[in-house]
Amino acid sequence: MNPNSRISGRFYGVGLGPGNPDYMTVRALKILQSADRLVHFCRKGKRGHGRTIADAVVAPDAAREIALVYPVTTEIEARDPAYGSAITPFYEEAAENLASELEAGHSVAVLCEGDPFFYGSFMHLWRRLAPRFPTEVVPGVTGMSGSWTRAGVPITWGDDVLTVCPATLDHAALVERFRATDAAVIMKLGRHLPKVRNALKEAGLHDRAVYVERGTMADEFICPLPDKTDDAAPYFALILVPGQGRRL
Amino acid sequence: MNPNSRISGRFYGVGLGPGNPDYMTVRALKILQSADRLVHFCRKGKRGHGRTIADAVVAPDAAREIALVYPVTTEIEARDPAYGSAITPFYEEAAENLASELEAGHSVAVLCEGDPFFYGSFMHLWRRLAPRFPTEVVPGVTGMSGSWTRAGVPITWGDDVLTVCPATLDHAALVERFRATDAAVIMKLGRHLPKVRNALKEAGLHDRAVYVERGTMADEFICPLPDKTDDAAPYFALILVPGQGRRL
Repeated sequence: MNPNSRISGRFYGVGLGPGNPDYMTVRALKILQSADRLVHFCRKGKRGHGRTIADAVVAPDAAREIALVYPVTTEIEARDPAYGSAITPFYEEAAENLASELEAGHSVAVLCEGDPFFYGSFMHLWRRLAPRFPTEVVPGVTGMSGSWTRAGVPITWGDDVLTVCPATLDHAALVERFRATDAAVIMKLGRHLPKVRNALKEAGLHDRAVYVERGTMADEFICPLPDKTDDAAPYFALILVPGQGRRL
Repeated sequence: MNPNSRISGRFYGVGLGPGNPDYMTVRALKILQSADRLVHFCRKGKRGHGRTIADAVVAPDAAREIALVYPVTTEIEARDPAYGSAITPFYEEAAENLASELEAGHSVAVLCEGDPFFYGSFMHLWRRLAPRFPTEVVPGVTGMSGSWTRAGVPITWGDDVLTVCPATLDHAALVERFRATDAAVIMKLGRHLPKVRNALKEAGLHDRAVYVERGTMADEFICPLPDKTDDAAPYFALILVPGQGRRL
């Protein structure tokens, strides 16, 4: 199908798991060790989480590394048209850069926190490049799996329904989702913590909710949500509401 | 706290991922290689999926293996009181057997398909043994992550809400959940396929649904749900409804 497939490099999206490098898969490890180019997303002036997770396996190597620096992250709401205007050209350009590498015969691995196909920035490269190049996506342990494991709260029992909600939803939408579910994970917390806390209270789920920052990493922080009295939360923090289904 | 903790063995719940042994984590691999006892669940006369996944790493070894044979699986509805009457004594007895091993100083690893804290049978042993013995749970790549990866359908984009539903819910409950979500995963399909198909049609999600059996395994089968015209589905089959959120 692809006339270049005999010479072009292979395009990888590699799920690196929730943060602890021991939770990387065997396949991810192998690709990290062998790919010609290691690509990570990051904020201006910061190292990306994906690259940091990979540190345990691959030392920094300027010749192999490609950093994709977001022009904007959480300074603009993603629903604001200004966000799309800044970010779409960034993905376009990044995809073209990686296409040049692939056309030159280099294998290109994009390092993804968690699982590449679960809220991943990688997906915006994948939809541009997968139709053009031989592609392999490697699933990873999600941040939420790592978090409920470390928190010691099995998330779903028996016939529990699990709802995964970005914290960006408005108060009423959050309450509606929380009332219709048995278990919940609230992602992308950041500045939305006070709103989410109130929605959980209104839906009667606040008392059993658990707050997790950097789950599985060396500096993880976990506490019952009712014990978290301040409103400061990083973007990658999440809240777990464990299900209460069938105990056998 | 536990007076035996200096001499008792360590209790592990090991997530082995969706089926392909390359999607096992580094930590899972290490525990498989070193644990004194490898425990798996299975039906009468069958080898368990968890044990089969581990075959790539650990050869059968009668001295290390403990098979926990379910007295009942899908012959009785889990909501039927007869199910609980059969299964609760089974978990009680299994936990006591493992407790004896742990007290004898043996490390005991329970092999779990997917992620141990996500609809796992392991949880019923964990709640009995974790309060008594030093315990480590290792998260795994879920079956659903492996399935959406292999199907080539990123599951959640932007602010998509994801709902994970067991197929055991009744028709009306399924329709209600499907109408209130952007993306969905329907687990534990088995004989519930016709009901789930109708509920997806009623909620307008049938056209973009994808059917997956044994995702990531050698004999995986994946097709658009509209192309699956028969009603035969194994218990572990699932349906994916990918989200349609922000493309950037």
